[in-house]
Amino acid sequence: MREDRNCQWRVARRPDGNVVAADFQYTEEDIPFPGDGEFLLKTYYINLAPVMRMYMGGEAIAGEVPLAIGDVIHGRAVAEIIESRHPDYQVGDFVHGQCGWQTYKVSKGTKQEKFRKLPDLDISYSAALGALGMTGFSAYFGFVDCGRPQAGDIVVVSGAAGGVGSQVIQIARLKGCHVIGIAGGPGKCELIRSLGCDETIDYKTGNIAEKLAAACPDGIDLYFDNVGGETLTAVLENLRMHSRIVLCGSISEYLLDKPFGLSNYTRLRRTNTTMQGFFVYNHVDDFDRAEHDMSKWLQSGQLRPVEHIFDGFAALPDALASLYTGTNHGIALVRIRRGPNDNEE
Amino acid sequence: MREDRNCQWRVARRPDGNVVAADFQYTEEDIPFPGDGEFLLKTYYINLAPVMRMYMGGEAIAGEVPLAIGDVIHGRAVAEIIESRHPDYQVGDFVHGQCGWQTYKVSKGTKQEKFRKLPDLDISYSAALGALGMTGFSAYFGFVDCGRPQAGDIVVVSGAAGGVGSQVIQIARLKGCHVIGIAGGPGKCELIRSLGCDETIDYKTGNIAEKLAAACPDGIDLYFDNVGGETLTAVLENLRMHSRIVLCGSISEYLLDKPFGLSNYTRLRRTNTTMQGFFVYNHVDDFDRAEHDMSKWLQSGQLRPVEHIFDGFAALPDALASLYTGTNHGIALVRIRRGPNDNEE
Repeated sequence: MREDRNCQWRVARRPDGNVVAADFQYTEEDIPFPGDGEFLLKTYYINLAPVMRMYMGGEAIAGEVPLAIGDVIHGRAVAEIIESRHPDYQVGDFVHGQCGWQTYKVSKGTKQEKFRKLPDLDISYSAALGALGMTGFSAYFGFVDCGRPQAGDIVVVSGAAGGVGSQVIQIARLKGCHVIGIAGGPGKCELIRSLGCDETIDYKTGNIAEKLAAACPDGIDLYFDNVGGETLTAVLENLRMHSRIVLCGSISEYLLDKPFGLSNYTRLRRTNTTMQGFFVYNHVDDFDRAEHDMSKWLQSGQLRPVEHIFDGFAALPDALASLYTGTNHGIALVRIRRGPNDNEE
Repeated sequence: MREDRNCQWRVARRPDGNVVAADFQYTEEDIPFPGDGEFLLKTYYINLAPVMRMYMGGEAIAGEVPLAIGDVIHGRAVAEIIESRHPDYQVGDFVHGQCGWQTYKVSKGTKQEKFRKLPDLDISYSAALGALGMTGFSAYFGFVDCGRPQAGDIVVVSGAAGGVGSQVIQIARLKGCHVIGIAGGPGKCELIRSLGCDETIDYKTGNIAEKLAAACPDGIDLYFDNVGGETLTAVLENLRMHSRIVLCGSISEYLLDKPFGLSNYTRLRRTNTTMQGFFVYNHVDDFDRAEHDMSKWLQSGQLRPVEHIFDGFAALPDALASLYTGTNHGIALVRIRRGPNDNEE
């Protein structure tokens, strides 16, 4: 006899533009029992990322199984193992990985789900979806490995108040770079300045190309791109010799009716600039290094988590929509239940 | 008293689309006399490159002074020093550098003109505009330094029958790569096959994206781009992990009414692909290495020059137009007069 129920959010229909309530279907079912070689997970936090709207659209993306109408939506979570018939997963262990938008899950611990145990640190479990999870690892591998920052580099980060961006700007400071953050609105600009940006650009007022040229009179050494579109276009007009562009996301393009066309990509030529894309799971063999460095910076206080926490399982659809309206800051999380190490707020 | 005259082609008006006869003005003047610290050059070959149409359009590009209406058009040439009052340039020396579209030039040997002496090799002087000049150096630095080829790489080269492309495919073979060349029409495809392409794609028949996917079922490791546009777009859909794209030219875009927009550049992400631009003069400190390697390959017969020679100074305007109509192959040169080492044809 189980007291609780497994709550789930499923794909009701394919989103057209940003997600709206009617795109989601709420269901409940009995909490499943793990069979041989399986274990039962209880979710604490679910991370929101732009890729989830694409999952809902049925796209085969980010290595996940394409979703049919009626499927539970994909999403990474921090979860506790509360029952186990699997030798590698013990009751009481906390992991992060693919749990989906649900409050419980039975798993076989497949490679596809990419479970990873939480490091034994005295920090909020939410960090496993932030600095010590895929968001933080994206910041780490994209900026450090792909961007190859040097002390003194002029670094520009777009989406600087977002989940990845808020960590990139802090790592850039750690590496001795001069950091220019781009964000929307005075509140976010104040946030990123408090995280260490030397200069901030509010893309919501005035012309981004003019502001960028003014902020970087000698050009840009390294651009970390979370937004694509007009901002990337403006950056391409302000490059320094041997500069690097790292493509992480392009949130300004995702809701456009027709694909954005990058008309000035040939600007990469005159400065011998490299534009590199990356996907965090391409770095899976190096996850331990990222976790080690990010943990060290978290514990020393050099890296501050920036979390936008929505409370309760019911908040998931609105939290996802917020990614596209620019109303959240830092990493967007839904807290299903509070973890033992969590700060009281 | 001088017997000859200095013939010149000047900008009559800004080109609209491809160049036409009325865009050019032919003039003659007396051959100038070099002053103190100057020398007189007599041109043998002038190289044609797409950049020259942009010069005529008044663009400040490739480090050259923007042209006004009435100016002699920029162009690199092989020339003999026939009079000298400059200590570093001796009568009888052959150089290549910025001479402009004229049969004689007085020069101070400025940095801007980028003169370089021809190596002492028993090969046609035209090679100094091909394998041993900026065309060859573009192939060398773009492919070897930026592309970082590995033996066994699946390499795709567009504009493979052109000046740079015809050398890139040969260097790719030297490096042990599997080479797929893209060119327009059966004649060019036969040419590039004779230069060592394992496979050829005729972009003029059928769908380039489908042909590319069929030719590279496991994806592309290294793409050397001379054309941009739809070909680059198709390549971006067929990338292998850690692949590289080298941007050298985008000739398919130069005559478009509105800029081409690269709509799928974000494909660089899932395979951690780098797209790097380069400009040959950014590698000026390494020119000796390029000349050494290219000379060695030329002399061993591993690298075959592919020249499309137009005869006579009068041919310059038509020769430039031919770059955009795809009627030439290899490097496009105008021979003003035959050099001592030239093959008789």
